[in-house]
Amino acid sequence: MNQTMHEQPATKAPVHPDYSPGLEGVIAGESAICQVDEGEAGLRYRGYAIGDLAERCSFEEVAYLLLFGRLPTGAELAEFSQSLQRHRSLPHQVRRFMDSLRPGMHQMDVLRTGISLLGLSDPEAQDGSREANLRKSVRLLAQIPELIAGSYQVMAGRKPMEPDREGSFAENLLNLVAGRRQDDLGAAMAQALNVSLILYAEHEFNASTFAARVTASTLTDLHGAVTAAVATLKGPLHGGANEAVAAMLIEIGRPEHVAFWLRETLAHKRRVMGFGHRVLRQGDARSAIIQRHAERLSDLCGDRHWYQIAATLDRLMLEQKGLRPNLDFYTAVAYLLMGIPSELSTPLFVCSRITGWCAHVIEQQDHNRLIRPRALYTGPAPKAYDPLEQRT
Amino acid sequence: MNQTMHEQPATKAPVHPDYSPGLEGVIAGESAICQVDEGEAGLRYRGYAIGDLAERCSFEEVAYLLLFGRLPTGAELAEFSQSLQRHRSLPHQVRRFMDSLRPGMHQMDVLRTGISLLGLSDPEAQDGSREANLRKSVRLLAQIPELIAGSYQVMAGRKPMEPDREGSFAENLLNLVAGRRQDDLGAAMAQALNVSLILYAEHEFNASTFAARVTASTLTDLHGAVTAAVATLKGPLHGGANEAVAAMLIEIGRPEHVAFWLRETLAHKRRVMGFGHRVLRQGDARSAIIQRHAERLSDLCGDRHWYQIAATLDRLMLEQKGLRPNLDFYTAVAYLLMGIPSELSTPLFVCSRITGWCAHVIEQQDHNRLIRPRALYTGPAPKAYDPLEQRT
Repeated sequence: MNQTMHEQPATKAPVHPDYSPGLEGVIAGESAICQVDEGEAGLRYRGYAIGDLAERCSFEEVAYLLLFGRLPTGAELAEFSQSLQRHRSLPHQVRRFMDSLRPGMHQMDVLRTGISLLGLSDPEAQDGSREANLRKSVRLLAQIPELIAGSYQVMAGRKPMEPDREGSFAENLLNLVAGRRQDDLGAAMAQALNVSLILYAEHEFNASTFAARVTASTLTDLHGAVTAAVATLKGPLHGGANEAVAAMLIEIGRPEHVAFWLRETLAHKRRVMGFGHRVLRQGDARSAIIQRHAERLSDLCGDRHWYQIAATLDRLMLEQKGLRPNLDFYTAVAYLLMGIPSELSTPLFVCSRITGWCAHVIEQQDHNRLIRPRALYTGPAPKAYDPLEQRT
Repeated sequence: MNQTMHEQPATKAPVHPDYSPGLEGVIAGESAICQVDEGEAGLRYRGYAIGDLAERCSFEEVAYLLLFGRLPTGAELAEFSQSLQRHRSLPHQVRRFMDSLRPGMHQMDVLRTGISLLGLSDPEAQDGSREANLRKSVRLLAQIPELIAGSYQVMAGRKPMEPDREGSFAENLLNLVAGRRQDDLGAAMAQALNVSLILYAEHEFNASTFAARVTASTLTDLHGAVTAAVATLKGPLHGGANEAVAAMLIEIGRPEHVAFWLRETLAHKRRVMGFGHRVLRQGDARSAIIQRHAERLSDLCGDRHWYQIAATLDRLMLEQKGLRPNLDFYTAVAYLLMGIPSELSTPLFVCSRITGWCAHVIEQQDHNRLIRPRALYTGPAPKAYDPLEQRT
């Protein structure tokens, strides 16, 4: 049954018989959206260094850059921001779905279903043109915060908040998921959330984006490709990891427990969350940016407790394992300070990455080629069929 | 903006700088499920030639083979078939969703959303073990015909039929989608449908299966991976093609119109549906099998009209373009004879391919490696950020 047939591949000889598991290091297509650069900039969106974008832009500006290929003028940004505010509401069918949710359902399953439903009832569901896809992307970006926050409220037995047509994307999101209005501290939190949204927006052919591109390559609809991406992001080897960092910091509990906790964790060969990255072997430039904002927010909140746990663990992991934190690590500190429920960490990732996903779906369909690789057959050799009555 | 950077790839050198667009011919992983063989057998599921399986098995037997890795004994097959009958009903939340459907919605969007909802309300939603995934696969296989047929009925303004716990998978499906009960002709139709289900069940790393594996590779849940596959199958370059064949045969209308229609179509460089295949360059062994059954069914129905249109087009395409039909081509003839609405052709593909998808998701997670390739960066060179107020 398990006889391998590595010596007898399928008749049509593949291009690379010694393949790379998980397609690691394999180029699967071309993209002009982002450059993963382990040099000084770390990461560039359409040519711009991530540090410049994170420190100087609103998330709306970066969303526009990713979707439309260039930074907006003032007038374009105002129109885009207004369009995002205007679409902050959900169709009846989606509200009805939200009413049917019960406690204990997985937030990412809810989001996956909700986005699929948004596709079903989208006013341009039958139009797959580039222009319609850009409009669908803007609607999705506007709708997802309401979908996430409303579902969470319903499952907690509360009535969903009414959408607020005022405020920036980050301000509205913070208000929806953490009930934070715009006092001074709220403004600082919205600023840190804005930075984290920019940092999470895009990262080349990560698994969820690649799933969206594979899906889009049959020329299916944009909502379908995004639904596939949400399903993919849920997994603990991808977006599911950022929620796990918060759980880990809570488990450690106090800065003075870190050393003992790490010793125990490593001794039992358990994984320390928020370190390492498939592509970024020499550290993640995004981590230093969000670390600065997490530290600043800790000071403003007068609560350095989470930051100290994280910073201690960061130092010990570098000393003992040579590993540096990834983007998820200090983001968890910032989200804990903002009072964002940890179940919403991965859905918040969606609020941001939806921009990268949509840009990739549109780019894939601009120069489409069906993504259909081959498998290396490792199954049983040819067998004769034995009739049912002879099987025992 | 569009300056290409082929000469300056991202810092980390990829394994294959001269990549294969659409991953054509590239091995993306190992699989023991199916062997695409352009030799005599054409295609093998777990070692068995497709011809033997199609002519001698029930679809249930093949579903068991794909999911559990070997053909069932009589007792195992009886238990498996009973389990499929027992799960022929949909949870309340899914029925409620079906009630909200409106005419004009796309059947595949409905199915994608319904399967995502089935995941949300699955009794083992939080259990991603191999055993739970096998049970989820069986439930999905049992539930999808009801979901497809019920949604179709609601959108046509009719009440969904009550699930029937009797009959084989193919008999139940035929009754649900075409209202066909078991008279002599109905039995012959169920037999042809059984064959087509077996032929569509599995085909290596096709785009929808590969999307399911990319999604599953983050260790997300089985329903999520299947949702991604449904989204992918919808596209006109994949499952969407089989529905287009029926539309083409209807458009041609009469056997004596074929030659003229083909001349016009080729002169206008329009695509003739149901011919050619990314992987199968020398013809599709499955086509000859379903052609035989389509011809036999035509004789039994006393209606050779669709078959004659198809056979004429087949002959002319070989003479004029050197192309042979793929599986979709004569399947469309059989489905037209059965009275299956053409909008349900791609959903019927799902009824079958769900077995291959689930087998691949389970296999991917048995030996998991995150699927995360790289992109060849073709975007703009590094740019300095210019502040908003300086942009015009």
